[in-house]
Amino acid sequence: MPEPRPHFVDSPYLVPFDGSFRIAEAPTCRGEDAPKKPEREARLAADVAAIAAQQEALYAEDKHAVLLVFQAMDAAGKDGTIRAVTAGLNPAGCMVQSFKQPSQEALDHDFLWRISLRLPERGRIGIFNRSHYEEVLVVRVHPGLLANQRLPHGEPTPGLWERRYESIRDFEHHLARNGTVILKFFLHVSKEEQRQRFLERIRDPEKNWKFSAHDVKQRAHWDDYMAAYQDALRATSRPWAPWYAIPADSKSYMRMTVASIVRQTIESLGLEFPRLSDAEQREMRSLREALEAEG
Amino acid sequence: MPEPRPHFVDSPYLVPFDGSFRIAEAPTCRGEDAPKKPEREARLAADVAAIAAQQEALYAEDKHAVLLVFQAMDAAGKDGTIRAVTAGLNPAGCMVQSFKQPSQEALDHDFLWRISLRLPERGRIGIFNRSHYEEVLVVRVHPGLLANQRLPHGEPTPGLWERRYESIRDFEHHLARNGTVILKFFLHVSKEEQRQRFLERIRDPEKNWKFSAHDVKQRAHWDDYMAAYQDALRATSRPWAPWYAIPADSKSYMRMTVASIVRQTIESLGLEFPRLSDAEQREMRSLREALEAEG
Repeated sequence: MPEPRPHFVDSPYLVPFDGSFRIAEAPTCRGEDAPKKPEREARLAADVAAIAAQQEALYAEDKHAVLLVFQAMDAAGKDGTIRAVTAGLNPAGCMVQSFKQPSQEALDHDFLWRISLRLPERGRIGIFNRSHYEEVLVVRVHPGLLANQRLPHGEPTPGLWERRYESIRDFEHHLARNGTVILKFFLHVSKEEQRQRFLERIRDPEKNWKFSAHDVKQRAHWDDYMAAYQDALRATSRPWAPWYAIPADSKSYMRMTVASIVRQTIESLGLEFPRLSDAEQREMRSLREALEAEG
Repeated sequence: MPEPRPHFVDSPYLVPFDGSFRIAEAPTCRGEDAPKKPEREARLAADVAAIAAQQEALYAEDKHAVLLVFQAMDAAGKDGTIRAVTAGLNPAGCMVQSFKQPSQEALDHDFLWRISLRLPERGRIGIFNRSHYEEVLVVRVHPGLLANQRLPHGEPTPGLWERRYESIRDFEHHLARNGTVILKFFLHVSKEEQRQRFLERIRDPEKNWKFSAHDVKQRAHWDDYMAAYQDALRATSRPWAPWYAIPADSKSYMRMTVASIVRQTIESLGLEFPRLSDAEQREMRSLREALEAEG
């Protein structure tokens, strides 16, 4: 079995594969030279249309699956970005999976079990809104959650997070070897921008239902989360499963940037519609003649 | 537990609940008084936007699931209709399931098992491209398929199809009682229109990959399929799980008609965003004060 083909694109937001990523230096704002908003929206629309055009070839070729993983602090814009990138896709070939707290049944399995059940099939695009990375993010910040996981050694043992990174790397390596093209996006929002977005949600009564005190309380752990993200991205960004840390303080810039990376990655696969063999072409001709004779 | 609320709309294409449906009299062409094509497209767009607007309330309320079942002869336009109706929906709350030949694992269970695994969760819209109805359509036309199903009595016994209808009715009745709003669409294409669409697929090399001799061979069983559809629709159209037999020879008319029925049905649910209790409103105020104090 050959090594999986690298699937990363040239981007200032690519998390390097050598463990040198520094989250404190990763921007949350768009660059000074970013295109103006109408240009950003036009580029997003063009990239989304290109992704949709590739989707049918992906389905017809039926060799690759595409998996987009989204992780972020609350209110960074996961839902909106997923919606923007998938607009125009054929929903028959596109599945969005939201991973919430694991069920009792999931907790009775290893932490990748429920993820495996939701992987996209060949020919499809799967989108994970949160993912197996929660296991080295929220669980690391709140290690009390491990008590629910009935680990074989009881208490967490030294090196637990390193072993989880290894499990995740091996899992993704295996998937990549077998045809899944994995792209992972960390939508990187600043703490101040999150505060503003939370206030908007509180002020708009129609948005209250999706807001809870729990979201606000996590702000007290902001620095722990950033440390957990930095370690996880360093340990798991690889050429066949790259992370991109996307500035999230401007929604339109974030959406444009994600769509561009997805488009470039899928286009790099060189997808082609299957060609019929000579025998199949002969069969097509005879079917055509039979149908024409009916008329 | 109260009886499920009826969820059907006034439509000339509603399959009556009294077993009087006659497929030979059900139109495949749009009526003489159908709106012109630009008007059909405008209505489709308006209905699709209205369905998308309802989707968020469906998700927020989290009480109902919506299940749209599509059945048809090949080339009637299932894929395109599903795509048209789901355009603009948030893919995070919308799942399209295509049911192909059952796997060995599925065949080791009752015929509703694999269907149950794919039902939409509360708050979501699920779309079945083919469904459990294949079990009383293709399997009835080709009863040799029953040999794979390892039925307890071996050979098919008298009354098999009636018992399957009963199983399906009971299954849907149970789902409806528990909050699933079921709408079923038979896209009714004429044999001549199917012939024309097959010829188009053969003539367009980009469409060849999704075409096979199998599709053409089924035309020899056209009358058997029509009889199977008539019996199945008669036996399973109920106020809580109505069938609509939609003329399919005009794609734009079919899409407009399906979207209108879906819109009317969802709007009839009277979905509302959850309201916060007094205690929750007080909590919102204190969260807001805490966030404002941070600034």
